[in-house]
Amino acid sequence: MILSYLYERRVIMADSILNKNERSGIIVAKFGGSSLSDGEHFKKVKDIVLSQDAIRYVVPSAPGKRRGSDDKVTDMLYQCYNISSAGGNIDELFSEVTKRYDSIIEDLGLITDLSEEYTHIKWALMHHAGRDYAASRGEYLNGIILADYLGFDFVDPAPFIKFADDGAYEPEITNSLLGIELKKHQRAVIPGFYGSMPNGTIKTFSRGGSDITGSIVSRAVYADLYQNWTDVDGFLMADPRVIDNPKTISTITYKELRELSYMGAGVLHEDSIFPVRSAGIPIVIKNTNHPDAAGTMIVSDNNAPDPSTVITGIAGKKGFSVISIEKAMMNTETGFGRRVLEAIEKEGVNFEHLPSGIDTMSVILSSDEVVSKRDRILDSICSLVEPDSISMEDGLALIAVVGRGMVKAKGTASRVFKAMADADINIKMIDQGSSELNIIIGVDENDFAASMNAIYKEFEK
Amino acid sequence: MILSYLYERRVIMADSILNKNERSGIIVAKFGGSSLSDGEHFKKVKDIVLSQDAIRYVVPSAPGKRRGSDDKVTDMLYQCYNISSAGGNIDELFSEVTKRYDSIIEDLGLITDLSEEYTHIKWALMHHAGRDYAASRGEYLNGIILADYLGFDFVDPAPFIKFADDGAYEPEITNSLLGIELKKHQRAVIPGFYGSMPNGTIKTFSRGGSDITGSIVSRAVYADLYQNWTDVDGFLMADPRVIDNPKTISTITYKELRELSYMGAGVLHEDSIFPVRSAGIPIVIKNTNHPDAAGTMIVSDNNAPDPSTVITGIAGKKGFSVISIEKAMMNTETGFGRRVLEAIEKEGVNFEHLPSGIDTMSVILSSDEVVSKRDRILDSICSLVEPDSISMEDGLALIAVVGRGMVKAKGTASRVFKAMADADINIKMIDQGSSELNIIIGVDENDFAASMNAIYKEFEK
Repeated sequence: MILSYLYERRVIMADSILNKNERSGIIVAKFGGSSLSDGEHFKKVKDIVLSQDAIRYVVPSAPGKRRGSDDKVTDMLYQCYNISSAGGNIDELFSEVTKRYDSIIEDLGLITDLSEEYTHIKWALMHHAGRDYAASRGEYLNGIILADYLGFDFVDPAPFIKFADDGAYEPEITNSLLGIELKKHQRAVIPGFYGSMPNGTIKTFSRGGSDITGSIVSRAVYADLYQNWTDVDGFLMADPRVIDNPKTISTITYKELRELSYMGAGVLHEDSIFPVRSAGIPIVIKNTNHPDAAGTMIVSDNNAPDPSTVITGIAGKKGFSVISIEKAMMNTETGFGRRVLEAIEKEGVNFEHLPSGIDTMSVILSSDEVVSKRDRILDSICSLVEPDSISMEDGLALIAVVGRGMVKAKGTASRVFKAMADADINIKMIDQGSSELNIIIGVDENDFAASMNAIYKEFEK
Repeated sequence: MILSYLYERRVIMADSILNKNERSGIIVAKFGGSSLSDGEHFKKVKDIVLSQDAIRYVVPSAPGKRRGSDDKVTDMLYQCYNISSAGGNIDELFSEVTKRYDSIIEDLGLITDLSEEYTHIKWALMHHAGRDYAASRGEYLNGIILADYLGFDFVDPAPFIKFADDGAYEPEITNSLLGIELKKHQRAVIPGFYGSMPNGTIKTFSRGGSDITGSIVSRAVYADLYQNWTDVDGFLMADPRVIDNPKTISTITYKELRELSYMGAGVLHEDSIFPVRSAGIPIVIKNTNHPDAAGTMIVSDNNAPDPSTVITGIAGKKGFSVISIEKAMMNTETGFGRRVLEAIEKEGVNFEHLPSGIDTMSVILSSDEVVSKRDRILDSICSLVEPDSISMEDGLALIAVVGRGMVKAKGTASRVFKAMADADINIKMIDQGSSELNIIIGVDENDFAASMNAIYKEFEK
């Protein structure tokens, strides 16, 4: 992650030299698994693609669930790999996979014949072609069908999307190769989720990685817009499992999205932001089943319109721990905070926040990360800074109230904390830096849902 | 500071072994310079001391100002030192000093004769006896007069209060020597402010250090109470230069006091807390001119009564700078925060607070500390963490809202931020750790007074 990330930073610098005033007139559309689960959805996708002449490149996922009890094709392919690796027979399961594709072909009235592909793939699966190869075939086959159905060229991304020996994605060589290849195709379907290693074997991104392919394609063709089609009307202001029927966000900046994603608001694959962000290409999240809905536009921080609301979104996570350190006169000790962080770093743990008073310092950590290291971390802090007292407590939830509108809107903190006070919630930690993009609030895990609801209701108005 | 402090920590451990259930029945009373500025005040002091049989040890400061335009004796003595060092003639100024003492002696109708002392001191001042020696004579002479007036023994602290070669106060040897000496005196006056170096020369504490002497004496005699007599009714909830007529705090814990003192609420010398804190001896701040007022009791954190108010006090300081650091995915980089602090530490600067978002981190520093180091610190951070952007802004004021009552009182943050919102103040930073003892708020320096007033008014109710 860090390696590929450093790479991306160089990209940002390279692209910023490029003059992006010229518009390419190209839109890249990526369709998620639920948008391509069956023939009926393929028809909706075709309507969407053909209604916009600018959509020249389409990135499909593998077919998702058609109904609650259904399997995603990707899961079935992983299962084939597992069975085959264990020496089992995949005949039955693989035929389930082929049936999914064949029924789509039949529903659409296509004459596409995938039988040769099926034979090749099944043989490869039985001969240990690798877990990533197995998974990638979901997108690969879906891409062939969709290209045929749309009348677009089919471009297998394997030769162009490159990963290094250590598995890190290689953005520069990819951008160059993919750009050259796609110039040869007026319109094309490029399956999402995978590329290849230097030795030619298939390598996938992490789960949900078709979002990344769409972003990479968008950058390679200098798209004006990256449309990410899914089964929701856009990003919601809050998690619908916690808040009843939350509103959709109309515009969000990359920075806001990062803050919300980190705190658990997941719609888009986190890594999928960087290629387009670096190239200044906006993303719009749209609903295949509701294409007239405006969706959510994700824009660069500099091009963001003035927000219509103070708060863009609220996200939160449970599962944090707090180390509370007390030491009289700690702030006269140069290096006190640095030594505390060093003790934590020595155990390979990242700290989340470091709120401090005068003689007190709290370190907020992810509980998962500290599980087995608890005593070692506390011992290490004790020996490095000799605190007067130190303790560790679990069960903290963090809530991020995020909005670029907060800089201008005075009184946001007041509204947040008034709402929480009215809901009788005890606040255990507050952290707001000078970016004024967010306020991070720590509460007891038992108060998590009540806090989210109280804050959401205050800003829904 | 750090050395002597580490020393103090060992003391805390040693004293905690001691069974402090037995009461000594001893009160130590320290009187500030304004309480001993003239004969009239000496009479008030005598009334106070003789009305409480338990007051067996009294620590005086040097005579303070009698009226606004007056000079403090200590300042006159420093001036004598400066003149003498520059080869000048101190006759006139030194006779002003002796007149101050002689007029007190005359007002009190004493027959004390200090002429021999005067001769000796003047001779020493003219022969470069040292700056600390010069300053200390203010307390020394005042102590002789007060002992005579009260009928107490006079104990010069020089042989008992010890400083090391490097100037650091030596608490252990002092406690032992002073304890043995004071056992020999049923009642005694011990001048504040000074002790001696290993070579016997006089060494003073920093300005205001008679408070420390009072604290050291209290510990040495196992006092039940340390009365610190001054010219105010106790600690005020806020700075009267900012807030009109603030209320007096009835009880405050050491921790609360530290937080408030650090942020600029100064009544008691900061270092004066440690000796009594370590020994579990409460301090009471009383007004010599208004002895019936309850004053402010400073108690150990464990023995604090339930507070009658949510907020114990509010203090604040201007003159802070913020370094704002942005870097995408910073929290996936183990050691990011540690490296930022390392860059600052390398320049010998202490950080005050480190609020952080997901991809943003702010470092709050005292502007005084960074003045000439600004570019070096920013360069150093850049090279250590390679941020996407970094900037530094001055003009931040920090406000600490402190109260042990906040843990139990939900809604405190709400009241604080509502009050600030109603006053139309933009909040630039918030920091509240898990101790829940304080909330620290950053505002523009121009909003400082308005913020203090808004918060005070909210909690005055």
